[in-house]
Amino acid sequence: MTRIVELKKGILEKNDLHAAALRATYTDSGVRVSNWVSSPGTGKTALLEALLRLALQRGVAAAALVGDCATDNDARRLARSGAPVRQIVTEGMCHLEADMVSQHLNGWDLASLDLLVVENVGNLVCPSGFDLGEDTRIALLSVTEGEDKPLKYPQIFHSADVIVVTKTDIADAVEWDAESAYHALRSVNPVAPIIETSSRTGAGVDSLLDQLLSSVPADDSRLTPQEA
Amino acid sequence: MTRIVELKKGILEKNDLHAAALRATYTDSGVRVSNWVSSPGTGKTALLEALLRLALQRGVAAAALVGDCATDNDARRLARSGAPVRQIVTEGMCHLEADMVSQHLNGWDLASLDLLVVENVGNLVCPSGFDLGEDTRIALLSVTEGEDKPLKYPQIFHSADVIVVTKTDIADAVEWDAESAYHALRSVNPVAPIIETSSRTGAGVDSLLDQLLSSVPADDSRLTPQEA
Repeated sequence: MTRIVELKKGILEKNDLHAAALRATYTDSGVRVSNWVSSPGTGKTALLEALLRLALQRGVAAAALVGDCATDNDARRLARSGAPVRQIVTEGMCHLEADMVSQHLNGWDLASLDLLVVENVGNLVCPSGFDLGEDTRIALLSVTEGEDKPLKYPQIFHSADVIVVTKTDIADAVEWDAESAYHALRSVNPVAPIIETSSRTGAGVDSLLDQLLSSVPADDSRLTPQEA
Repeated sequence: MTRIVELKKGILEKNDLHAAALRATYTDSGVRVSNWVSSPGTGKTALLEALLRLALQRGVAAAALVGDCATDNDARRLARSGAPVRQIVTEGMCHLEADMVSQHLNGWDLASLDLLVVENVGNLVCPSGFDLGEDTRIALLSVTEGEDKPLKYPQIFHSADVIVVTKTDIADAVEWDAESAYHALRSVNPVAPIIETSSRTGAGVDSLLDQLLSSVPADDSRLTPQEA
C-alpha cells in the first residue's frame, strides 16, 4: 500500500510541475482558463455550448478543450457554437492531467484567446487532486443528482473556486430541495460563489461568463497536502 | 508509464483472486449478489431502497453493502427499508475492491441471505475493471444523464449483465430520447437485459427483483484482457 501511496504522490508532484508551467503560459498569454468538473450527465457540455455562444456574441475570443474517455461527441457539440474546440480522448482514463492539456494546446495561439474552458472527464472523484493550471475550477451539481452529493464527494466541491447548479428549469419536477443542497455545499465550501443556471432557458449563463472573465487567478494554496 | 501499467495489472490480478474467493463463498452460501455501478446521482440508493422493501415484502432475505467516498448517508437511507445494511467509507477512493467487500462481510451469516446488493461508489469509469465476485453487475443510466453516456463510458456499460434505466417518471420533462439511448446501449452491449424503472412510481422494481433472483451466475469471461 505504501508503494501505491508513494507512486500516487509522485504522479501528483509531476502533475503539479506541469500545471505550474501551464499557469505561467496562461498568465503570459493573458487568457483566463477554467477547469470544469462534475459527474457525468450534469450538463457540462450543454452549459458550455451556451456559454461559448454568449462569449462570441459579446466579442470574447473563447475556445474549448474537452476530455472524454471515448468519442469526440462533445467536441462536435461544442463546435456548433462557432468557437475553436479540441478533444482529448483519454481511452478509459478517469481524469485529465496537466501534461495531456499541454500536448493538446500545441500549436494553438493562446495569446489570441480571452477565455479557454477545459471540460474534464465526467467524474466526481478522480479529477480533484489534479491541478490543470487553471485560474478557476468549476464544480457543477445538477438539480437531478441529489442534494447530499457535496457531502458524499467533498474533495471536488471543496477544491472548487465557483460552484454551478445546473438544470434549474426542472428543479420542481425533481423536487429539488435548494436549502438542503446549499447547506451541504456550504459545509464543504463556505466561500465559493454559487451560480444557478439552466442551459435550456439561458438563466445564469451571463453571470457565469462575467465570473470567468473577472475572477482573480487562484494561487496554488488550493491543493493542500490532505487533499493530494 | 510502464511502471504504472504494471502496478495496475498487479492490483487487478490481486483483486481477481479476492473476487474468486468471494464468488466461491457466495455460491456455497446460496446468496445471489449484485454489484451496482453508475454515475453519482443516477438514483441507485432510491431504487435500492424500493427493491429492498419489495424483497422483504415477498419474504426474500435481502441485505445491502454500500460504498461511498464519505458519509454513511446511503446506509442510513437503505436501513429504512428494514433490511440489514453495512457501509463502506472509502475515504476518497473511487471504486470498491473485492478485499474491501470481504472485510465488511466479516461476521455476517451469508447463508441466511437470499440476496445481497453491493452499491459501488458513484463513478462511471473506475469500478469497471474491479470484479467483486458478483453474479450480476448492474449498470444504471438515468433519463437525466444524456443518451450518449454509454458511448462515452463504454467499459462500464459493456461489462454489465443487466442495464437499468432510472427516473423514467421524468422522461418527458427532460426530453429523454429512448431510441437514441437504446441505440447507444446496444452498440456497447448487445445482450444485457434493459429494465426501465422509476423509484417514485415503483415501475420496473418487480422485474428487476425477478431478474436478480433468477439470473444465471456470470462466469469470469466478462473481464477480458483489453478491459483490465
